Amino acid sequence: MKSIEWLNNSIRFLDQTKLPLSEVYIETSDISILADAIRTLKVRGAPLLGIASAYGVLLGIQNEIHSPKEKFFSAFEHAVNLISSTRPTAKNLFWALERMRNIFRLNSIDDPRLLFDKLKSEALLIHEEDRIMCEKIGKHGAELIPDGAKILTHCNTGALATGGIGTAFGVILTARNSGKNISVFVDETRPLLQGARLTMWEFQKEGIPATLINDNAAAWTIKTKKIDLIIVGADRIAMNGDSANKIGTYNLAVLAKEHRIPFYIAAPTSTIDRSIQSGEEIQIEERDVQEVTNGFGKQIAPNNICVFNPAFDVTPSHLISAIITEKGVLRTPFSDSIAYTVKQ
Amino acid sequence: MKSIEWLNNSIRFLDQTKLPLSEVYIETSDISILADAIRTLKVRGAPLLGIASAYGVLLGIQNEIHSPKEKFFSAFEHAVNLISSTRPTAKNLFWALERMRNIFRLNSIDDPRLLFDKLKSEALLIHEEDRIMCEKIGKHGAELIPDGAKILTHCNTGALATGGIGTAFGVILTARNSGKNISVFVDETRPLLQGARLTMWEFQKEGIPATLINDNAAAWTIKTKKIDLIIVGADRIAMNGDSANKIGTYNLAVLAKEHRIPFYIAAPTSTIDRSIQSGEEIQIEERDVQEVTNGFGKQIAPNNICVFNPAFDVTPSHLISAIITEKGVLRTPFSDSIAYTVKQ
Repeated sequence: MKSIEWLNNSIRFLDQTKLPLSEVYIETSDISILADAIRTLKVRGAPLLGIASAYGVLLGIQNEIHSPKEKFFSAFEHAVNLISSTRPTAKNLFWALERMRNIFRLNSIDDPRLLFDKLKSEALLIHEEDRIMCEKIGKHGAELIPDGAKILTHCNTGALATGGIGTAFGVILTARNSGKNISVFVDETRPLLQGARLTMWEFQKEGIPATLINDNAAAWTIKTKKIDLIIVGADRIAMNGDSANKIGTYNLAVLAKEHRIPFYIAAPTSTIDRSIQSGEEIQIEERDVQEVTNGFGKQIAPNNICVFNPAFDVTPSHLISAIITEKGVLRTPFSDSIAYTVKQ
Repeated sequence: MKSIEWLNNSIRFLDQTKLPLSEVYIETSDISILADAIRTLKVRGAPLLGIASAYGVLLGIQNEIHSPKEKFFSAFEHAVNLISSTRPTAKNLFWALERMRNIFRLNSIDDPRLLFDKLKSEALLIHEEDRIMCEKIGKHGAELIPDGAKILTHCNTGALATGGIGTAFGVILTARNSGKNISVFVDETRPLLQGARLTMWEFQKEGIPATLINDNAAAWTIKTKKIDLIIVGADRIAMNGDSANKIGTYNLAVLAKEHRIPFYIAAPTSTIDRSIQSGEEIQIEERDVQEVTNGFGKQIAPNNICVFNPAFDVTPSHLISAIITEKGVLRTPFSDSIAYTVKQ
C-alpha cells in the first residue's frame, strides 16, 4: 500500500478520511486539490505531509517550465505559499518546503526546465530518504522483537503516516516479514481514534493478527493476554530521551514498568530536538475541547463544562527501554547515546 | 437530585438515556412502563436497580389489594417475573426481588392490604438503607480528602447509580459540603462514556468544579495538574481486597502508585463477595464488540476485525490504599480488615 506516489506529472494519494470503510485514491495534477486534501486531513501524518508538500511544489510549477523565468519564479512562490497555508503548525511541511526552497535558491540561475528537474529530484529524495529511514528503523527494531511476541501499540505509525513502512508499525511488520509469529493489540487511541480507524486497517491490510481494544483495557490486556512488549512512535525527543507522543503514551510506559515488560519508542533521529535538554521544555499542544465532548459528531457531555484536552504527553526517559532509530538502537544513558547519535 | 422516588401509588425517576442533554423525569404507576425503562437503561446503576425493582413489585400489586388473595398472589408472581426478565445479569435486581419475596413468604397469611403495607415498608427500607449507606461512606471517606484536593475519578458512582448521594461521588460531595475546596478531573470512561455523560452532569448539578478528560490523558493530568488522590467505586470485592470495577480502573491504580498518590475504592460492604478469596476468581464480563467499533452510532473501525472488550478489570489489593465502606475505612492487610468487617 502506497499512501502517496509521484506519477511524473500528477500525484496519487489515499484519501485517509474515507478510512477504514473505503479505500479511495485521489490522483491529481492540480496543486489546489492537494492543498485542500492536506487542509482537510485527506493526507496526514508528519513525514507524509513533508513528502506531499514537496510534491505539491512540483504540481504548482510544472506547467510553467516553458514560461519566462519570472512567471516560473512566481509560480514557485505561489506554490510554497499555498502549501504553507494549509497546516500552519505541521513542522515536516515547512521542513520539506525549506528543502525545496534551498534547491531553488542554489540553482535559480538555471533554466526553469533544469531547475524543475532538480526540484523533482529533491522531492523524490525526501520521499526516498523517508522510505529508507523506515526500513532501517524496521530492521534495527525487529531484532528486539522475540518470535511469538504479543505486542501492544498506540496511535498510528504506519505507511499512512510516513513515506515507507512506518516507524513502530514498520518494526512490527519487519519482524513478521522475517518469519516471526507476531500478534498485536491496538489501543483505539481516543480522542481521534487513529488506532481504531487507521492502524487496525493497516494491520488488516498486512495480514498481521490484530485485536482492537478500548484504551482503558490496556492494563487488563497486558496482564491477562500476557503482552510481551509495548512499542510506539514519537513526535519529539529531548536530548535526555524524554519523548513526546500521542496522549496516552505516558500511561502505557507506566503500565510497562508495572508489568516489567519493555517499552520501546521507534522514531527517526530527525525527531530528536537538539535544542531541548529535557521533556520539560516540550510545549504540549491543547486541542479543541470538542474532540472530547463531541467525538464523532455526537455530543456526549453536558453543555458548558471544562475540558482538558492535551494532544500529547511526555514519557520520561527512565520509563523507556530503548529508542529505535534509523542509525541504531539507543539505550540508557540516553543523554550519552543520543548525543553520540546526533553528532554522527 | 432524586434519581428515583416512591410517591404513594406511583414512582418518579429520571430518564438517564436523555442525559446529559436534557433532564426528563418519568412518573408512572404502570409496572410495564417501569420494566421497559429498566430494559432500555432509562433506569440503571446497580443499587438503583435494586430499589427500582422493589418499587416495581409495589406497582404490580397495588391495584389488587382489595382482590381475592389468589388474584393478589398471582399479581405478585407476575410482577416479580416481569422485573426479573428485564436485566437477567443485574445482581442487585434479584437481590431486591428476593428480599420482597421473603417478606411475602413470611407474611402470606396476612390480608393483601396488610401484606402490601409490609412489602411497601421493605421497598422503602431498601431505598433508605441505600441512602444511609451512601451517607456513611461519604462521611468516612470525606475524612481522607484534604482541603484543596484535586481528585481524579472514573465512571459513574453518584446519585444516578444509587439511592443516595453515591459512593466515590458521595465521598467527594461530602468533603465539599463539609467546607473543603475540592476540584475533580473526570475520565470520560470509554467505551460507554459514563464519566462524560453522567458524572460530569452530576458534578455540574452539585456545583463542584469538574474537568472532563479523555481517559488517555489520565497520567499526564495526574502529573501536570498535580492530582492528590484517585477515588473510584467497585462492582465486586474479593476477601483479600482485590477489586473489580469498570475497565480502566486498574490502569489508574498503577498510575497512582507511580505518582505516589493514594488510590481509594468506595463501596458498600454488600459489594464484598464472601465466596471468593482473591480477584483471580472474578469472572470478567466481555461485552458486545460494537461498543468499541461503533462507539457513537458511527463505525470507527474496519469490518471483520478482532476486538477484546472486557467491561471490568481487577485491581490487585496491593495497589489499593483503602476501601471506604459504610462500616468504616478498611486498610491493609485487607484479608484481616475485610474478614473482621464482614463478621460484624
